[in-house]
Amino acid sequence: MPADAARGVTTAVAPDDGADRASHGFPARNDHAPGPPRVRQIDAEVAPTVERHLTELLARRVAQATATHAIFGTDVAERLARFTLGGGRRIRPQFLWWGMRACGLPDDEQIDAALHLCVALELLQTCALVHDDVMDRAPTRRSRPSLHIDCAAQYAAPARPDPHRFGEAAAILIGDLALAWADDEAGALLLPGRRAGRIRETWSRMRMEMVAGQYLDIQGEITQTRSRSQAISAACLKTARYTVERPLQLGAILGGADETTLRALCSAGGGAGLAFQLRDDLDDVFTGPSHRDKPVGGDLRAGKPTYLLALAHSRAEADGDRHALHVLNRCLGRPGFDETDLDDVRHVLERTGARRSVEEKVHRLIAQSMRELDTVPLDPAARVHLRTLMHQSAGAPAPPTEPERGRSTVAVEGAVT
Amino acid sequence: MPADAARGVTTAVAPDDGADRASHGFPARNDHAPGPPRVRQIDAEVAPTVERHLTELLARRVAQATATHAIFGTDVAERLARFTLGGGRRIRPQFLWWGMRACGLPDDEQIDAALHLCVALELLQTCALVHDDVMDRAPTRRSRPSLHIDCAAQYAAPARPDPHRFGEAAAILIGDLALAWADDEAGALLLPGRRAGRIRETWSRMRMEMVAGQYLDIQGEITQTRSRSQAISAACLKTARYTVERPLQLGAILGGADETTLRALCSAGGGAGLAFQLRDDLDDVFTGPSHRDKPVGGDLRAGKPTYLLALAHSRAEADGDRHALHVLNRCLGRPGFDETDLDDVRHVLERTGARRSVEEKVHRLIAQSMRELDTVPLDPAARVHLRTLMHQSAGAPAPPTEPERGRSTVAVEGAVT
Repeated sequence: MPADAARGVTTAVAPDDGADRASHGFPARNDHAPGPPRVRQIDAEVAPTVERHLTELLARRVAQATATHAIFGTDVAERLARFTLGGGRRIRPQFLWWGMRACGLPDDEQIDAALHLCVALELLQTCALVHDDVMDRAPTRRSRPSLHIDCAAQYAAPARPDPHRFGEAAAILIGDLALAWADDEAGALLLPGRRAGRIRETWSRMRMEMVAGQYLDIQGEITQTRSRSQAISAACLKTARYTVERPLQLGAILGGADETTLRALCSAGGGAGLAFQLRDDLDDVFTGPSHRDKPVGGDLRAGKPTYLLALAHSRAEADGDRHALHVLNRCLGRPGFDETDLDDVRHVLERTGARRSVEEKVHRLIAQSMRELDTVPLDPAARVHLRTLMHQSAGAPAPPTEPERGRSTVAVEGAVT
Repeated sequence: MPADAARGVTTAVAPDDGADRASHGFPARNDHAPGPPRVRQIDAEVAPTVERHLTELLARRVAQATATHAIFGTDVAERLARFTLGGGRRIRPQFLWWGMRACGLPDDEQIDAALHLCVALELLQTCALVHDDVMDRAPTRRSRPSLHIDCAAQYAAPARPDPHRFGEAAAILIGDLALAWADDEAGALLLPGRRAGRIRETWSRMRMEMVAGQYLDIQGEITQTRSRSQAISAACLKTARYTVERPLQLGAILGGADETTLRALCSAGGGAGLAFQLRDDLDDVFTGPSHRDKPVGGDLRAGKPTYLLALAHSRAEADGDRHALHVLNRCLGRPGFDETDLDDVRHVLERTGARRSVEEKVHRLIAQSMRELDTVPLDPAARVHLRTLMHQSAGAPAPPTEPERGRSTVAVEGAVT
């Protein structure tokens, strides 16, 4: 079960509705039928369904690993399974599912393929998080010791070699295995040729974009770049593409979307995903620890080159604000970064107007995403869910214009890093 | 081009020969035809063919990565390509190719699939080596700085954050990308259903076994285990399975081997692969640095729990040889491990008889593998190549019983770690 703090809240979303569908110009198959029961069942609980499939798959994988070697099964496979099932709000699977549902009611083959890909997305995210924590040397994740810390603790004892080095090595291997299992799932689809090829191509790009986004982050940290364009590129790759746009695209390809619909969904997803990352950057500085999975100011302490900081820097330079520049140069990436530093940076972000500009950008991006969604006919229930998911990921209240006909929970997790 | 020191040498191998084929009971398609030209061409130069395909693929991937982001293309994708093309003797692809060829002459579809898998194997090996060097904090690989050292050097400068941490993070990401690209290639096969499913299953197991073998190694280092069975398990997983048996099996499935042939090839490959690892363990202690890609005594310094050391330990215990036990306990895994320690350990390995026992085991395993190969009808050229590859990987001279009708180079690289 998800355990980490959620930005998402319980929100109202409308169930599928024939009249609404017609009003959006959606080519309905049968406006008055409730749709195949399996689809409706998953619609009502996407995240729990994915979690159930993930649980079943991981049980099989752990058994296979244990049969390979007992120590490997216990130390590596079981730990991987616990981590994957122990948190995360399955946001990428939700985008995938509703991307597919936006195109209508899927058949069993499409549903099976979607669930394979949903499970694959979660395993890929396990790789991303576990390796990210090793790279950042992060002590905690989801209010528990990070996986490499947990591994190190298992064999720590006096007169033994460095347990930290062991913990990091074990976590690298666990991340590798998660990536391998993700690819196994993504490769297990049984789909007709052309669609399978497009899915493979999108899956391949998404993985590469995830790695690229992470790399731009760490390269920005070491070079202490203040480039706004690099910050936006990293945010687009690691969050807009990896977390929102590509999962949506995978779903839409599975659903058989035409090119116009695909473009609109990708564009909406890309904008909302960027808003998601910008909101995450704001939350790192301005949100209390109870609202987040990560310690407040973690990005500042690491010297992560966020757009928010790059903007503050360029504003301060343009204004000749030497005090602000001094604060930014002194505090960012400082190992001993403390509460006073945090307050100083907050003040600079207010004073340069960077905070307000980024908040406005988040709102503009979301508004633009909503307009994109409205340019194409979509399944009405899917449209409502996508609107809600996009708003929530950007930390905005649920969209006000939708009819509230039923209630469903949609929860959103933090960005990849 | 391969750059690292090779154990492999130029050896004589026989080309395909009708009479020989008939004498092995191989169901020849056309005993007197030279076979399709494409097959013959690859037969004559498996490693260069794989290298050419690898070069072409990596050029496309680097272009795609650079289009994603220029810094990512230069720092990550180009480095991955350089590393992959800069060394390695393509031993896994050779086992795969000759595993397929053992079943006869493949058609174009099979050849294409084999080359995809050969390229995938090499990319997977890049992931294994790059991550292994991070885990071991190895300073060099192939007589050049390891990839994480190379990454660190790129941005090292006074007043910048810790470049080593950056280098390790970058190398983790490069390994992830190599694994992702390997899976992309393995997933790009266009094969009929059942065969594709078996290839996927074997590929999946092989990746897991690679991770399992590496994990048993590091777990053995931290727990300072002297378990012979764990040492054999690690060797079987990381080398016997990953390097020999599974590549052979992938080739044999592609070639359409029947179950009896498949079992014989796997059994021969498993034995030869274990011999390969045991020879590598011996070489770590007894071979001069000019013959190896890695520094002599590296496993001893790391405290790697090899079968050789586990055997010496259990012999010393059984004999009540307190001096030998003292040397083993004192030296293995010692950070300041030096030439005197190396000499002391060598002496213990001789005195306990561990060296001789392991050498005998290598010879027995290879002899058994040769007998396994002889139990089934195989394409004669493939049989000769497999015999040669297996002998060479175990550091033995080329098999004496084969007719020397043509000359071809077969080179063998070191085990995975």
